[in-house]
Amino acid sequence: MTIKLNADGTVTDPQGFQVGTATCGIKASGNPDLMLLHSTENCAAAGMFTTNQVVGAPVTLNRETLKSNTTNMRAIVANSGIANACTGNHGLNNAIEMQNIASKSLQCNPNQVLVLSTGVIGVQLPMEKIGKGIRTASSNLSHNSGCHGAEAIMTTDTNPKYCAVEIKLPTGTVTIGGIAKGAGMVHPNMATMLACITTDAQVPASILHSALKTAVNKSFNRISIDGDTSTSDSVLIMANGTSGISCAQGDSRKAFTAALTCLSTNLAKQIVRDGEGVNKFVTVHVTGAPSVKAAHIVANSIATSPLVKTAFAGSDPNWGRIIVAAGKSGVPFDSSKTQLWIGSDLEDELQLVKQATPCDYDENIAQYIFSQPEFYVHLDLGNGESEISVWTGDLTEEYVRINSDYRT
Amino acid sequence: MTIKLNADGTVTDPQGFQVGTATCGIKASGNPDLMLLHSTENCAAAGMFTTNQVVGAPVTLNRETLKSNTTNMRAIVANSGIANACTGNHGLNNAIEMQNIASKSLQCNPNQVLVLSTGVIGVQLPMEKIGKGIRTASSNLSHNSGCHGAEAIMTTDTNPKYCAVEIKLPTGTVTIGGIAKGAGMVHPNMATMLACITTDAQVPASILHSALKTAVNKSFNRISIDGDTSTSDSVLIMANGTSGISCAQGDSRKAFTAALTCLSTNLAKQIVRDGEGVNKFVTVHVTGAPSVKAAHIVANSIATSPLVKTAFAGSDPNWGRIIVAAGKSGVPFDSSKTQLWIGSDLEDELQLVKQATPCDYDENIAQYIFSQPEFYVHLDLGNGESEISVWTGDLTEEYVRINSDYRT
Repeated sequence: MTIKLNADGTVTDPQGFQVGTATCGIKASGNPDLMLLHSTENCAAAGMFTTNQVVGAPVTLNRETLKSNTTNMRAIVANSGIANACTGNHGLNNAIEMQNIASKSLQCNPNQVLVLSTGVIGVQLPMEKIGKGIRTASSNLSHNSGCHGAEAIMTTDTNPKYCAVEIKLPTGTVTIGGIAKGAGMVHPNMATMLACITTDAQVPASILHSALKTAVNKSFNRISIDGDTSTSDSVLIMANGTSGISCAQGDSRKAFTAALTCLSTNLAKQIVRDGEGVNKFVTVHVTGAPSVKAAHIVANSIATSPLVKTAFAGSDPNWGRIIVAAGKSGVPFDSSKTQLWIGSDLEDELQLVKQATPCDYDENIAQYIFSQPEFYVHLDLGNGESEISVWTGDLTEEYVRINSDYRT
Repeated sequence: MTIKLNADGTVTDPQGFQVGTATCGIKASGNPDLMLLHSTENCAAAGMFTTNQVVGAPVTLNRETLKSNTTNMRAIVANSGIANACTGNHGLNNAIEMQNIASKSLQCNPNQVLVLSTGVIGVQLPMEKIGKGIRTASSNLSHNSGCHGAEAIMTTDTNPKYCAVEIKLPTGTVTIGGIAKGAGMVHPNMATMLACITTDAQVPASILHSALKTAVNKSFNRISIDGDTSTSDSVLIMANGTSGISCAQGDSRKAFTAALTCLSTNLAKQIVRDGEGVNKFVTVHVTGAPSVKAAHIVANSIATSPLVKTAFAGSDPNWGRIIVAAGKSGVPFDSSKTQLWIGSDLEDELQLVKQATPCDYDENIAQYIFSQPEFYVHLDLGNGESEISVWTGDLTEEYVRINSDYRT
């Protein structure tokens, strides 16, 4: 039993999935802004959504749809450029209308279609353009166009995000494919994090949901940038079973969950790497915590601290900021037991802090590590056995420029 | 009974207080970096300290000192340039040594002296220079040099911060004076927030502590910039009673607390205005919350959101970011009831959002308000009667530049 990542793979790699795209004219750039992801067979489906209390109309609608149908889903329709959030009842009706138009084009029921929107808040969708776009996309559905789908859901992303994993089981091979769009460096109101995942494995909806939850908690929920969640963050998965291989039990179920986690982690890291103004990819590794939850809170506190992130940007191994960010997290620890290491892929690990006081290290080496495009900081709290890694980027002047000038 | 703010007042305005300063040579700039604040009479004393678990040696020492003595305090010795934090036992011994040297110079007991340090973390104090500085400062103590004290505790501050309030009571007049240093835009490891407050009112230590707690919660704890707390944030107050006027009971006690709050608020706002890279002073006013605590959490969530703060910087009235920041705070509210107004001092209040959907407002006026040096955003949650205001600044490219290049 092996799991193999395919960096060129996408949502149309699993059997029976097609993608169509269109240019509705919502994006000022004139780039494609509508995607239809379709399965030729009914799918088990599951979704995970933003924890923000203010949610876009598509999130409200998808939650309802998944209440009535998790067993014969057929499609996802997505637009970029307008988020359909803070748009009231009018917006909810527009989301329902998207669902209706897509279901007619695909000759299925409305509750077999999930809806995603990403873009600016507080603006109504131009439904005539959207309707035309959905009909166009349904006319160019293809088994080879998953990457085009990844392009059609981009907003401030600079590149499309996709990958696939292949699981070789004793009973045969199943594939999971995914596309995603970025959340910018933080989760700006335009740049919602969206992911669509497909698989030809046979997985009952309840097991699919459980696998998705595990995978999301170990991947998308660990790209902690500033703690913000957008109104529309969504991860959707559809399993159409066309491979004829079951991943419902035992080792195959475990392998499926592991492979889904692998795929989700890859997509999540692509989102961080393409974050607004991000020049560095930093892994924050916290060990010696009393629980995984505590480790996560400490890691987030470090990964979201503007002072830590500007130090990353400036290649300044300013370890005081890291310890202080951990200290404000609210997780109790004995600061006199803390240890801190930094390193890059060059096997150049350097200990900066032992028992809360600075080690006698070479500042030049520390600066060199922080000047690498990828590096890690490893904080041990000396207060338990639990650990976690989260992924983040640096905070640059470019980020401020992008987000100050965004709507103007 | 009246309370009058004096913007030119300082810690030496109350009777019986003196300040001396010195240049130890810790700051690269060659500016004064040591202050001695002395009372000619014994003082009731109280302190409020950082909630960060990682604390500087002076915080540890002051907590101990205030356990054994809140009734006959005599002095505060403070240095800038080095924070004496993350310095282990050696650092704690240095803080004790500062206390000892100051007490010898002032001919009092060590536990009659409080100690403050602000600056870089993880570096030991040069005790020979510090000792010389304390002796110099004790030789130039003056009743007119409070402003010099404010200068000697500056780090990244661009101006000294001080003010005083006068309370006219039926029994006579008492004065409260204060100096503070800034926390930068956030609370960087160098730029700890410190404040020293003096008064000639007669106030028993327990009442002094209670008044200080009220005042700090309504002032310094409301300059929520990024939720960070430094290792050394401290507010100290000394009351020497030399006015002969008691503020221990009834209306005079209430007036004292009100005046102390007024002084603290003024100092806190000075800190925000002088924040690193801050060009705009923004009041975030949250109403209609189920409790003051809930209102505070929502206001902090808005005031610390990088997306909201970059929108302030870009004069972009991007209200979606404000609603979304409130939504992620964890405080439950019905987003369909939210209302949002913005305005400046020009009586130009503009409603942007009603029942979670955009009003038909003039975008040019909204942009004009956000382009002002001071403005407010007012969010009503429609879920209760509680409210709060917090003060914050914008997030500019300059901030990132300052904090990326800080140690290099």
